[in-house]
Amino acid sequence: MKAALVFGMVMGLAAPALAQDKTAIEKLNERFSAAFVKGDIATVAEMYAEDAFLLPAGSPMVRGRSAIKSFWEKASEDIDNIKLTTVDVKPLGADAAREIGTFSLHTKGSQPQEMTGKYVVIWQKAGGEWKLATDTWNSDK
Amino acid sequence: MKAALVFGMVMGLAAPALAQDKTAIEKLNERFSAAFVKGDIATVAEMYAEDAFLLPAGSPMVRGRSAIKSFWEKASEDIDNIKLTTVDVKPLGADAAREIGTFSLHTKGSQPQEMTGKYVVIWQKAGGEWKLATDTWNSDK
Repeated sequence: MKAALVFGMVMGLAAPALAQDKTAIEKLNERFSAAFVKGDIATVAEMYAEDAFLLPAGSPMVRGRSAIKSFWEKASEDIDNIKLTTVDVKPLGADAAREIGTFSLHTKGSQPQEMTGKYVVIWQKAGGEWKLATDTWNSDK
Repeated sequence: MKAALVFGMVMGLAAPALAQDKTAIEKLNERFSAAFVKGDIATVAEMYAEDAFLLPAGSPMVRGRSAIKSFWEKASEDIDNIKLTTVDVKPLGADAAREIGTFSLHTKGSQPQEMTGKYVVIWQKAGGEWKLATDTWNSDK
């Protein structure tokens, strides 16, 4: 994957191929979910751009990695896991991509509930790494 | 505005200046709201890209201009007006921009209610015109 990306850059391609972006983003989503399940919110927060925007369903807008970390620390008290499924990835210029996906999560507590919905993430490359720059979601119901 | 954009393109600039993008997007939001209030959903739909994604709060994902038109036709039966306020615009390559904003709307009926929330729109240029390519929102509560 990395070698293919470097090859793409050496060849002077403006944007890596879509399939590569999608695979890279799916791997990052796995990392996100795995860190979340372990309660490793430091890793979750590190995946966001320093100046990222989080627009959570049911809560006011959150700006910046530090505030986003606090949001997920609090949210993880109520959420057991998060499953993310990429539906569509669209490259936007050489350093950004728009991902649309669906999610499901389970709430903690004596009567755990499943919630499902959809999300939009704008990924941006910083130092060769994809970071979540804008992250928002809502429920289907 | 149009002359400035053409000048930018002639000068070979990769992306028009941010302030120009923001002004253009704010004008489009005014057109959107004005058309919505008049019940002119044809104009609202025309502002979306042919293959746009709509991710409404509380409803499943909608794909494509024609399905988006049907969604807004139905939604406009319950909504009196929509006010859109741009918070942040970020260009993504030469032909796309990510807008974050807040909205307020009033429901119709004998007991109208105000709803407020936030939204993310990915605008993409098609034939020199900005179109909504991805549109999603959620509530603060």
